[in-house]
Amino acid sequence: MKITLEKIARIVGGRVVGDGGVVISGINSLEAAGPGELSFYTHKRYEKSLAKTKASALILSEKTELFKGPQVLVENPALGYAKAIALFSPPVPSYPGISDRAVIHETSRLGTNVSIYPHVYIGIEAIIGDGVILFPGVFVGDRVRIGDRSVIYPNVTIMHDTRIGKEVIIHAGSVIGSDGFGFVRDGARSVKIPQMGSVQIDDQVEIGANNCIDRATLGKTWIQEGVKTDNMVHVGHNVVIGADTIVVAQTGVSGSVEIGRQVIIGGQVGISDHIKIGDNAMIGSQSGVAKSIGPGEVVSGSPTMPHRLWLKTTRLIRRLPGLYQELRELEKRVKRLEKRDS
Amino acid sequence: MKITLEKIARIVGGRVVGDGGVVISGINSLEAAGPGELSFYTHKRYEKSLAKTKASALILSEKTELFKGPQVLVENPALGYAKAIALFSPPVPSYPGISDRAVIHETSRLGTNVSIYPHVYIGIEAIIGDGVILFPGVFVGDRVRIGDRSVIYPNVTIMHDTRIGKEVIIHAGSVIGSDGFGFVRDGARSVKIPQMGSVQIDDQVEIGANNCIDRATLGKTWIQEGVKTDNMVHVGHNVVIGADTIVVAQTGVSGSVEIGRQVIIGGQVGISDHIKIGDNAMIGSQSGVAKSIGPGEVVSGSPTMPHRLWLKTTRLIRRLPGLYQELRELEKRVKRLEKRDS
Amino acid sequence: MKITLEKIARIVGGRVVGDGGVVISGINSLEAAGPGELSFYTHKRYEKSLAKTKASALILSEKTELFKGPQVLVENPALGYAKAIALFSPPVPSYPGISDRAVIHETSRLGTNVSIYPHVYIGIEAIIGDGVILFPGVFVGDRVRIGDRSVIYPNVTIMHDTRIGKEVIIHAGSVIGSDGFGFVRDGARSVKIPQMGSVQIDDQVEIGANNCIDRATLGKTWIQEGVKTDNMVHVGHNVVIGADTIVVAQTGVSGSVEIGRQVIIGGQVGISDHIKIGDNAMIGSQSGVAKSIGPGEVVSGSPTMPHRLWLKTTRLIRRLPGLYQELRELEKRVKRLEKRDS
Repeated sequence: MKITLEKIARIVGGRVVGDGGVVISGINSLEAAGPGELSFYTHKRYEKSLAKTKASALILSEKTELFKGPQVLVENPALGYAKAIALFSPPVPSYPGISDRAVIHETSRLGTNVSIYPHVYIGIEAIIGDGVILFPGVFVGDRVRIGDRSVIYPNVTIMHDTRIGKEVIIHAGSVIGSDGFGFVRDGARSVKIPQMGSVQIDDQVEIGANNCIDRATLGKTWIQEGVKTDNMVHVGHNVVIGADTIVVAQTGVSGSVEIGRQVIIGGQVGISDHIKIGDNAMIGSQSGVAKSIGPGEVVSGSPTMPHRLWLKTTRLIRRLPGLYQELRELEKRVKRLEKRDS
Repeated sequence: MKITLEKIARIVGGRVVGDGGVVISGINSLEAAGPGELSFYTHKRYEKSLAKTKASALILSEKTELFKGPQVLVENPALGYAKAIALFSPPVPSYPGISDRAVIHETSRLGTNVSIYPHVYIGIEAIIGDGVILFPGVFVGDRVRIGDRSVIYPNVTIMHDTRIGKEVIIHAGSVIGSDGFGFVRDGARSVKIPQMGSVQIDDQVEIGANNCIDRATLGKTWIQEGVKTDNMVHVGHNVVIGADTIVVAQTGVSGSVEIGRQVIIGGQVGISDHIKIGDNAMIGSQSGVAKSIGPGEVVSGSPTMPHRLWLKTTRLIRRLPGLYQELRELEKRVKRLEKRDS
Repeated sequence: MKITLEKIARIVGGRVVGDGGVVISGINSLEAAGPGELSFYTHKRYEKSLAKTKASALILSEKTELFKGPQVLVENPALGYAKAIALFSPPVPSYPGISDRAVIHETSRLGTNVSIYPHVYIGIEAIIGDGVILFPGVFVGDRVRIGDRSVIYPNVTIMHDTRIGKEVIIHAGSVIGSDGFGFVRDGARSVKIPQMGSVQIDDQVEIGANNCIDRATLGKTWIQEGVKTDNMVHVGHNVVIGADTIVVAQTGVSGSVEIGRQVIIGGQVGISDHIKIGDNAMIGSQSGVAKSIGPGEVVSGSPTMPHRLWLKTTRLIRRLPGLYQELRELEKRVKRLEKRDS
C-alpha cells in the first residue's frame, strides 16, 4: 500500500504541516521507522525517540521542532495513529471458502463469503452470518447465531444457544456459554443447579484470549455493544456488562453483577456477586469490589475505597513501622509527664 | 414437559399450600416467569419481584401473602429450586454415536452408548466408560480412563495416564495433566524436573472452563469426590483437594498443597506450596494463604488472618489518615504540656 | 531401564557412599519408593519420611545415619534428583509421522522426524523444524516458524508470524500471538489499534498451560532464552522477558513492560504497563507492581515495597486494632494531664 501523506491526513482528520505529497508505504514506531514510513508521537516519554526517528512523516498533536519532516496534526494522536495503522494492517488471514474438513450440521445455515477453516464444528440449526471467519478448532453449538463479519479465532468454544452480534471478535481459546457456577449444599454434597439460560454478545464486542463467559442460570448473560475484554477475563452467570465498558486482563466478575456503560475495570480485579457498578465508574487494578459503586466513582483497593483515599492509605501503610515507633515515644513522654506530676 | 405441582412437590420434598393440581410446563425467575411456569423465592432481596411475579406457582420456605397462587413449602428453597429446575433442563447435547471424523486408537476401549463428536482424539489404550460424551476438540491421551456418564466439553485436553471417575463434568478449554511447574536452578539456567506422576479425578467432580490441573512430579494430583471448581482455577502438581470442597474462579493452588473436605475457597485466592488446609475451613476471596489453616477456620486477607480481625483491620486502614492526624495533634498537646512543665 | 547406582552418580555428578553396584530400575518419593528404586532427600521437612523409606538408594547432600543403604552425595540434591529422574522419564508421547487427518498447507515446510498428530492445522509458508511434535488441535498460523525438537501440546494456538526457537515446550491450551489489548477512545467508543507486530519465543523456553502471550502492536513481544512460565500467565503486547526469568502461575504482565534476566516473579502478580524490572529482581506473590524495580531488588505488596518492609507492615496491620486502642488510651492520659495542669 502506497498513499500520500495528504490522503492519510484526510482519513485521520488531521492537517499537514510541510510536504503533503510525500508517499507513505508503511507505519512503524519512532525507533523502528525508516524512510517511506509514517510514525506517531503520543507521549513525552517518547521525546528522545522523537529526536532520533528516521520516519518520513509524523502524526502528533502539536508541531514539533525536534522533527524536520512533514507532520500531520490531529487532536488525538493516539486515535489518529489507530486510524492510520488500520490503512497498512493486513486483513485477518482467512480460509478460501468452506473446508471439507469442517463438520457442519445439515440444518445449520451459512451466509455468503464465509471462511470456515478445517476442524471447525457447527451444530444443529446454527446460523452463521455473511463474511464470518471461523478458525480451526472452533466449536459452534446447536442454535448458536453469529452475526455478519464476526471473527472467531482458533479453539474457541461457543456453547449452544449463544447469540453473537455483528463484527464481534473472539480471540483464541475463549469459552462462551459454559455453565454458571451454581450449586446448592445438601448436607456435605453440592447439588448442581442446571444452567438453562444463555449468553448474548452484542455488535462490535471484542473478547480477549482464554476468557470464560458463563451462561445464565435462567435468562441471559449479556455483553453489550462495544465492550472490550482483555485476556483471561471471567464473567459469571447472569452478569450484564454495559456498552463500551473495558475490562482488563485476569479480572473476574461474579454471578449477577450489573456493570454500567463505559466503565473501566483494571486488571486482576475481583467483583463479588449481585454488585451494581454505575456508568463511567473506574476500578483500579487488583481491586476487590464487595459493594456497589455509583456512576462515575473512582475506586481502588481490596476492599475498595475512593481512589484518593486508597492512595493516601497505601502511603501510610508503608509508614506504619515509624508510626508505631512514634506512638511508643509519645507514650514514654506522657509517662514522664505523669511521673513529674505525681 | 408438563407435570402437576403436586408431583413437583413430591420430587423436591415439599408441601403444597393451595391447588396442587395446577399443571406446570416450565420454570423461570420471578421477573420472567409467565402463566404455567414455576418460580422460586430464596432471598428477601427479591421481595419486590415476588409481589409482581406472573408465575403460576412458587417454591419457597414460608407461605407468603404477597403471592396469591399455590406455593410449595420446602426447608431449603434453593435446593428445592435446584431439584425442580432439573426436571425442565434439557439433556447435554450429544452426538449420535461415534463420529468417523474422530480419531480413536485401535487399542482403546469404548463403553456402550458413548457420544464421540468429530475432531476428538483418543490415544493408545484409553478406556472410555458407558454413556460418556466427548465434545469436539477433546484430546484424550494414552492410557487415560474416563468413568461412566462423564461429560467432557469442547477443546478439553486430558494428558496421558489421567484417571477420571464417573459422572464427572469438565468444562471447555480445561487442561488436565499438564506438567507441574518444577525446575531446579543450575547456575543461571533452570533444569526441568520431569513430571512423571499423574492426575486422578474422582466421581461427581465438576471442573470449570479453562482450568489447569497439573500432573504430579511423582505420585498423583488428586481431586476427590464431589469437588467443584469454577472457571480458570489453577491446581499445581501433587495437590490433594478433599471431597466436596468448592473452589471459586481464578484461584491458584501451588504444588503439594493438601486441602481438606468441604472447604470453601473464594475467588482469586492464592495458596503457597506445601500448605495444609483443614476440613470445613473457609478462605475469603483474594486471600493470600502463606501458612496452614486449621479445620473450620475462617480466614481472609493477604497474608491471611482470622476473618473477623481482617474485617476490623480493613475498616481501620481506611481511617489511617485520621489516625496520623490524631497522633500529630496528640504530639502537639504533649509538647505543650512539656513546655508548661519546664 | 536398569542402571547401576555408580552410573547414576556419574551422570548426576555425585559420589557414592556404600555399594555403587546396586541396580536401580526406577525413581520415586521417599514415601512411595520400594526395593530397586532410587529416592532423594532435599529438605529436612521430609526427615520423618527419610527414616521410613524403603528405597534402595538415596540422593542427598550429606551422608545420613537415618538411611542404611547406599547414598549418592551431591552438592545440590534437587538438581541431582532432576537429572536422575530424567533417566527414568518416558519420552513425550509422539504420533508416528504425519497424520493424514492433519491439514498442512502445501507451501509449508516440515523438517525430518516430525510428529504431526491428527486435527493439527499448519498454515501458509510455515516452517517446522526437525523432531517437532504437534499434538491434536494445535493451530499453526501462516509464516510461523517452530525450531527443532520443540513440543506443542494439544489445543495450543500459534497465530501468524510467531517465531518459536529450538527445544521450546508449550503446554496445552496456550495462545501465542493473540492481538494486544490496544484501543483508543473516540467519544464513548473504543477504536481498535490493529496489532501488526509479532511474538518471538527463544530457545529452551517453556510456556505453561492456558497462557496468553499477545503479539506486539508494532515490533515484537519477546520471550528470551530459557524463560519458564507457569499456568495461566498473561503477557501483554511488546513485553520483553529476559533470559532465564521465571514467572509463576496467574501472573499478568501489561503492555510494554521490560523484564530483565533471571528475575523471579511469584504467582498472581500484576505488573503495570511500561514498567522496567531489573535483572535478578524478585517479586513476591500477589504483588502489584506499579513502578519500576531495580536489579536485584526484592519486593512484595500491592503496591510493592521492599520485601522486608512489607513483612513488617503486614505484621503491624494485624495489630491495628490494638494501635487504635493504645492511641485512645494515650489521649485520655494526656487529657488527664491537661486537666491537672489547668
